[in-house]
Amino acid sequence: MDDGKLAGLVSQAANYGLFDRLKTLRGLWRDIALSLGATPKIDPELPADDAALLRSQVQDCLQGRGGEVSARARAATLGRSYLGLSAVGRRNFMKMLADEFGTDPARIDKASADVAAAATPAERWAAERALRESLESPRQYLLTQFNALPEGVKFLVDMRAELLPLAKGDPAMQALEADLKELLAAWFDVGFLELQRITWRSPALILEKIMAYEAVHTIQGWSDLKNRLDSDRRLYAFFHPRMPDEPLIFVEVALVRGIAGSIHALLDEHAPVEDPKKADTAIFYSINNAQKGLVGISFGNFLIKRVVDSLSHEFPNLKTFATLSPIPGFRNWLDERLAAGDETLLEQAELRALAALAQDGKAGLAQLLEGRWPDDGAAVQALRLPLQRLCARYLLERRSGTARARDPVAHFHLSNGARMERLNWLADTSDKGIAQSAGMMINYLYKLSEIEANHEAYRGQGRIVTSAAIRALSKD
Amino acid sequence: MDDGKLAGLVSQAANYGLFDRLKTLRGLWRDIALSLGATPKIDPELPADDAALLRSQVQDCLQGRGGEVSARARAATLGRSYLGLSAVGRRNFMKMLADEFGTDPARIDKASADVAAAATPAERWAAERALRESLESPRQYLLTQFNALPEGVKFLVDMRAELLPLAKGDPAMQALEADLKELLAAWFDVGFLELQRITWRSPALILEKIMAYEAVHTIQGWSDLKNRLDSDRRLYAFFHPRMPDEPLIFVEVALVRGIAGSIHALLDEHAPVEDPKKADTAIFYSINNAQKGLVGISFGNFLIKRVVDSLSHEFPNLKTFATLSPIPGFRNWLDERLAAGDETLLEQAELRALAALAQDGKAGLAQLLEGRWPDDGAAVQALRLPLQRLCARYLLERRSGTARARDPVAHFHLSNGARMERLNWLADTSDKGIAQSAGMMINYLYKLSEIEANHEAYRGQGRIVTSAAIRALSKD
Amino acid sequence: MDDGKLAGLVSQAANYGLFDRLKTLRGLWRDIALSLGATPKIDPELPADDAALLRSQVQDCLQGRGGEVSARARAATLGRSYLGLSAVGRRNFMKMLADEFGTDPARIDKASADVAAAATPAERWAAERALRESLESPRQYLLTQFNALPEGVKFLVDMRAELLPLAKGDPAMQALEADLKELLAAWFDVGFLELQRITWRSPALILEKIMAYEAVHTIQGWSDLKNRLDSDRRLYAFFHPRMPDEPLIFVEVALVRGIAGSIHALLDEHAPVEDPKKADTAIFYSINNAQKGLVGISFGNFLIKRVVDSLSHEFPNLKTFATLSPIPGFRNWLDERLAAGDETLLEQAELRALAALAQDGKAGLAQLLEGRWPDDGAAVQALRLPLQRLCARYLLERRSGTARARDPVAHFHLSNGARMERLNWLADTSDKGIAQSAGMMINYLYKLSEIEANHEAYRGQGRIVTSAAIRALSKD
Amino acid sequence: MDDGKLAGLVSQAANYGLFDRLKTLRGLWRDIALSLGATPKIDPELPADDAALLRSQVQDCLQGRGGEVSARARAATLGRSYLGLSAVGRRNFMKMLADEFGTDPARIDKASADVAAAATPAERWAAERALRESLESPRQYLLTQFNALPEGVKFLVDMRAELLPLAKGDPAMQALEADLKELLAAWFDVGFLELQRITWRSPALILEKIMAYEAVHTIQGWSDLKNRLDSDRRLYAFFHPRMPDEPLIFVEVALVRGIAGSIHALLDEHAPVEDPKKADTAIFYSINNAQKGLVGISFGNFLIKRVVDSLSHEFPNLKTFATLSPIPGFRNWLDERLAAGDETLLEQAELRALAALAQDGKAGLAQLLEGRWPDDGAAVQALRLPLQRLCARYLLERRSGTARARDPVAHFHLSNGARMERLNWLADTSDKGIAQSAGMMINYLYKLSEIEANHEAYRGQGRIVTSAAIRALSKD
Repeated sequence: MDDGKLAGLVSQAANYGLFDRLKTLRGLWRDIALSLGATPKIDPELPADDAALLRSQVQDCLQGRGGEVSARARAATLGRSYLGLSAVGRRNFMKMLADEFGTDPARIDKASADVAAAATPAERWAAERALRESLESPRQYLLTQFNALPEGVKFLVDMRAELLPLAKGDPAMQALEADLKELLAAWFDVGFLELQRITWRSPALILEKIMAYEAVHTIQGWSDLKNRLDSDRRLYAFFHPRMPDEPLIFVEVALVRGIAGSIHALLDEHAPVEDPKKADTAIFYSINNAQKGLVGISFGNFLIKRVVDSLSHEFPNLKTFATLSPIPGFRNWLDERLAAGDETLLEQAELRALAALAQDGKAGLAQLLEGRWPDDGAAVQALRLPLQRLCARYLLERRSGTARARDPVAHFHLSNGARMERLNWLADTSDKGIAQSAGMMINYLYKLSEIEANHEAYRGQGRIVTSAAIRALSKD
Repeated sequence: MDDGKLAGLVSQAANYGLFDRLKTLRGLWRDIALSLGATPKIDPELPADDAALLRSQVQDCLQGRGGEVSARARAATLGRSYLGLSAVGRRNFMKMLADEFGTDPARIDKASADVAAAATPAERWAAERALRESLESPRQYLLTQFNALPEGVKFLVDMRAELLPLAKGDPAMQALEADLKELLAAWFDVGFLELQRITWRSPALILEKIMAYEAVHTIQGWSDLKNRLDSDRRLYAFFHPRMPDEPLIFVEVALVRGIAGSIHALLDEHAPVEDPKKADTAIFYSINNAQKGLVGISFGNFLIKRVVDSLSHEFPNLKTFATLSPIPGFRNWLDERLAAGDETLLEQAELRALAALAQDGKAGLAQLLEGRWPDDGAAVQALRLPLQRLCARYLLERRSGTARARDPVAHFHLSNGARMERLNWLADTSDKGIAQSAGMMINYLYKLSEIEANHEAYRGQGRIVTSAAIRALSKD
Repeated sequence: MDDGKLAGLVSQAANYGLFDRLKTLRGLWRDIALSLGATPKIDPELPADDAALLRSQVQDCLQGRGGEVSARARAATLGRSYLGLSAVGRRNFMKMLADEFGTDPARIDKASADVAAAATPAERWAAERALRESLESPRQYLLTQFNALPEGVKFLVDMRAELLPLAKGDPAMQALEADLKELLAAWFDVGFLELQRITWRSPALILEKIMAYEAVHTIQGWSDLKNRLDSDRRLYAFFHPRMPDEPLIFVEVALVRGIAGSIHALLDEHAPVEDPKKADTAIFYSINNAQKGLVGISFGNFLIKRVVDSLSHEFPNLKTFATLSPIPGFRNWLDERLAAGDETLLEQAELRALAALAQDGKAGLAQLLEGRWPDDGAAVQALRLPLQRLCARYLLERRSGTARARDPVAHFHLSNGARMERLNWLADTSDKGIAQSAGMMINYLYKLSEIEANHEAYRGQGRIVTSAAIRALSKD
Repeated sequence: MDDGKLAGLVSQAANYGLFDRLKTLRGLWRDIALSLGATPKIDPELPADDAALLRSQVQDCLQGRGGEVSARARAATLGRSYLGLSAVGRRNFMKMLADEFGTDPARIDKASADVAAAATPAERWAAERALRESLESPRQYLLTQFNALPEGVKFLVDMRAELLPLAKGDPAMQALEADLKELLAAWFDVGFLELQRITWRSPALILEKIMAYEAVHTIQGWSDLKNRLDSDRRLYAFFHPRMPDEPLIFVEVALVRGIAGSIHALLDEHAPVEDPKKADTAIFYSINNAQKGLVGISFGNFLIKRVVDSLSHEFPNLKTFATLSPIPGFRNWLDERLAAGDETLLEQAELRALAALAQDGKAGLAQLLEGRWPDDGAAVQALRLPLQRLCARYLLERRSGTARARDPVAHFHLSNGARMERLNWLADTSDKGIAQSAGMMINYLYKLSEIEANHEAYRGQGRIVTSAAIRALSKD
């Protein structure tokens, strides 16, 4: 029986689903099929013998059999197989990469010894390079090859997104994750990213993703989105040239007069559209990372800088660039303090006032905060001063054992060189706003002439730069 | 005197060229200027004190003072300074990077020791990562930052082009060059490259560069170029999304019937244009790398593959894909043999025939080859058989001590999985063609079903795959 | 007082709203303002003196004062004034154009006489040309000039949309409308239109309009629209290069196997997406004219032809092109017949069957049809045969006194050369479908080889081309 | 024998060239072929029987047989036949259109009578419309249909270019030409044209045409063109959306300081490139109509206006917009005067001075002007004053019997509202410049605030607006 006929039979068998039915014969058929260049169907759960098949494909790819072009084509096939796997199958595949295609300790040790033994600068340099190469795992080469897939970059970003939760507590998987991150960090160098303005003329495909990815102030639907793209609004996103359908990070901006203190006014679809040319202030009211697989590869600071530049150019009247930001950790921090029975939180007069409002005098604050207190005028009045003070204090807190601001949003903006400008009362009275930050929001101010100094003060000396107003609040 | 006034004075002084005139005061002025954030003009030759200035800028950039955004802006300033330097100044700057901003041996040795001492897999992995980081030189970070320049990628490609000749014999400079190559290799991953067809509709800006970069068969002017873009011709190039005005590599293709054996027929501007739909063969008659700074980062094989795919799709009638290639090293090899007095080159009858044509019987071949022998019918007849045989032998030769084909073009195509198909007599009778390869050219055949096997044969077993015809010629 | 100062005063007065307050002084101010080149604000209702102002602007424009470029700029100003008018004001303005800027009867009569008097062919031709020019109204020149507005073409299309209802019964306004139509017919020559495929990548701005303009099968929202743009659907529209944001006409197509007989299956968002490459039939299930201002300038037939061409090219497997169309006039026709007491509609057995279902035996059919009979199995069974027969009869009816099919959709497709192929029972059981056509829909078949003959049969001999099945139904 | 077989035979016969060989049988075959829908090959000279074939195709098209879509497809076939004709054949075809498909005198006369007889406004209007329709020739409908060709607009433009010289002295052909012009004038309304800047990034295809179409100052080659596209130069063209590869008209601009007085300085490829941001003057130094078929449909004035707007926006420093224009008719006018023995041309002193330079004292001026006098210092000195005076006089001359400036370039710019600003001595000493205008050129000044008044002065009162300097020169 010649090869051609055999191939015909195998293909026929595949069509009849024979591979699936005759599990016991699978190994045999598979060997025949492989020897003929066919690609048998992989079980999505990736049991051992399918894993063996993929393993041998990985090896072929790493050995560059048939030349670079073929290797890359093989990687693409492998990538497509991976996409056909279930969550379990993918985990098995990544585990295989993590455990079997990492660095070779013996080679590293040998290369280290060669470095130590180098006698001349030239020898030393060559040895260092060899050492460096020994520290690059074979799988890193494979990961690069996946770029041959039509959506290769997105493939790797998504692979990392799946890998991150699996890698916790597993050093080998963490090493794989680190390889992937290194590769993505080189490819997503900010110099390659393109700033695009998103408008109502943008493809619905992109707008749909913006809606899905917005996590700070949920977009309620197409008309809410259209409102955020109106002539007195801007939405900018970074894109990678090889992932043109996927925003990486985006920021929403409102062009207003004076620093905005309420998110509701900004999101109100029925508010009149203002003339953006008369605006003096740009408010960055929502910044969202869109790709979980790019965690830790940050470009938020560059995005803000690019948008400030672009807006300054388009609207010379803009004088102030500030955010209207959530304070996501305030209530958690406060609840901890309350639970710990911190006596310094409230003053006597405040305790009395709250007791008058709550059924249980002692636990007045905690009790009140659980309800929809912003709808109750008396509660609002009684809570205002103490909550502002406590929030200001929270904002000046550090993460334990570090010089970093405890609030993650504060840390991001302070690192970028912004300063804490103004605390806004009743700025976000949505349920989420109440639950996270007792309805308060904060403006971080980006003053171009101070950014470098602010950054240095925070990064270098651990100083949190704030306005006098916030500092005063914290001491009330 | 306040800072503002001082800055004014300094700027005035700069306008009056004071820095240039009062060389002795330069250091002083410079210090004042720097403390005020001014950027004094750099001497293009980069003498010591200007170098000191750039050195401190490099350091600022590496320390990330003022945050990542500022660091990148500072790198861009540095890059612009570099562009203002003379050849000497650039060499000095690169030497500084090479000598002062490389890896830290102590840190490497410490990290190596930590790897050796690691007790658990988790420790080992962390130590390996630390070792790897210690092997990354600080300047590599700086080089990445140059991507902030508007033409940042081109900047680095050109820097490497300038560095390559300077690095010869200087290990430190070679290490710098290797850093640069690593960076570019990541960025120029073939997955990022875009295949573009170049036509008469392409921007003149691009066409002008194609003319400048074509080195195999010089383009004589715009009408020669237009001829090469006609309906029975194709010209494809790879581009990088961040270097949209610069072809990286390009290939010229003629759509013909049967394998072409003469470059003159292909380049004849007056030849009638054929219907490309009737063509059965695509002849790749010129492949050119356009960027010296990308030497060693090859994508020629991918270009050929992509073009074959694209043409197959557009013209289903195409059955054969082959090159019409020069044999650049033949005459050199032959001259060496002749000079060495190799007696096996010619047979007695041939010697006699050549003696009849040459004044000096003994040195007949060498003498004949120096002239315009293709214009002399008798010489052509006498030379044909011996030259074809010798050329076939040359093509089967190895580079001394290796399994690599001696001819560089042969090595390229054999590595790609092509085979030597046909030797063409009087295929290129231009002066260059006579001088390089005695007027012969060769077709390399790309047969899709054999590419992998051919590649393996050559790379794995060192076998040069040829047609029976060429093999027969070599044994004549 | 010099001109400059006076202009300043006038402008100041305008700023203070003086024109509006001192109605009695308006005429005076206006004259001053005009003499200085100012543009006084127009009252949106266009009272007499404002009309006078616009009249003089029209005259200036027609006389070409200051040259063609100025005239066009002046027309643009006039156009902007028009856009600021209320419905009443616009009517007044159009009435002015209709009454005052039409043709000059004396000039026409003179030119007619010259034609009659022409002695040589050359004289005759010159006289005809002069006559032709005399028949072009001055306002036609003005209308052309509005093309200077940034959205000039859209401006004229919208003006005609507003004019059409106003022109009924007013010969002068009809003449204006005819001028406008002639201009638009030249500009919207089908050769200028661009066929675009609308996809989920199209700008939201365009998709929003598609949703607004779809009148056959209302689009319920963005997810309904997305379903209609899925991989087994196509939506094509014609655009004009100068109205790039406005679809002119669009058609929705489903790629299916066999001729579709139910609109619900096509519009079901939860139906599985089919592989379009396996489809053998393209169903045109909705065709919508989007611009009221282009009524009577038809390109529906060209759209169908272009889409058939495009689909045939993309999907060589497609064998059948057919519509799934409403029968909008059936129920009206039937109700008229019922009201007129037509005894031939139903047979005795049918009457009995219907009487058994309805409370009032005599008026059984009319009564049943008013309710949601498709939800009642017995009613469906009793109605099926008689309704199909009556509908088939209706489809073969002519508009009184003509050879035209009575049903407008039928007339459109028959004119295009389609034939009536299949009547579909319970094909559209939406309230609208029940109310218009008793839930039936029809397939018109576009068979390329028959289109010309069908067109000739219908247009020339008034023959309605139908399948045997429909003909048989009508005779049941 | 059935239709299918017969069609096969005919097609076979066509392949064997039977139609060409058996001239006598042609008519027969042709009838068979036509009855089967085949398209027999047309003889390029269009002899009578081929003309008959095209005639019947025209008739089919005009009768709309098979519907509008088919008619347009038939027109496209006819258009392709036309493109296959020789110059003689095309002339025959156009003559046929001119003679046979014009208006119908009887119908016109009847319609005229109806207009005269109309009793009410509504009747009058309807009659006028009918009259107007009767004045539209059937061929006009056909011409519109040619728009179905892929390059339909270009087709008609080129047809008119061919028709124009043929129409001279033939009223019927002139009538055809007038039909064509009317159609093109509607389609080429300036509102549809797109202004594009041509740069070194433009497609070579377009640049090549710019070189071919430049007729004022011939472009010497690609490097001359590149110089005219440098950063201190601008080249703008109008394009029609349906003729994207064809510039309609273009203007070349130099950005300089002060009004330029020499074309050589502007065209010097070796002159340093100036910083365009420092320029205060834009010099329009060449305006070219590129399409002969659009003669009489002018948009030069709009082009200048649009370019002035665009440049003012890009370079706010520009204060002056002027041309540097040829004076094409000066030498012709002067030669006529000299030939006529006009004694007032030169003063006695001038005659003496010229006599001293020329061999023949009397005919001194005429004789001198024939040579390369600009190379002779003495001649230059002697000629300067008299030639400037005579040229100024020429510029103020009218075309006989009109108020139009005699010089055509002067007429164009004066109509646009420019004024004659400065006469430049030795401004164009190329052979062409010497032969046309004795080496002089003139600046026309476009002063925005005066354009309307200048236009009115010229068009209305026939006043040529000039600077005091030119007026003074004319009176010297």
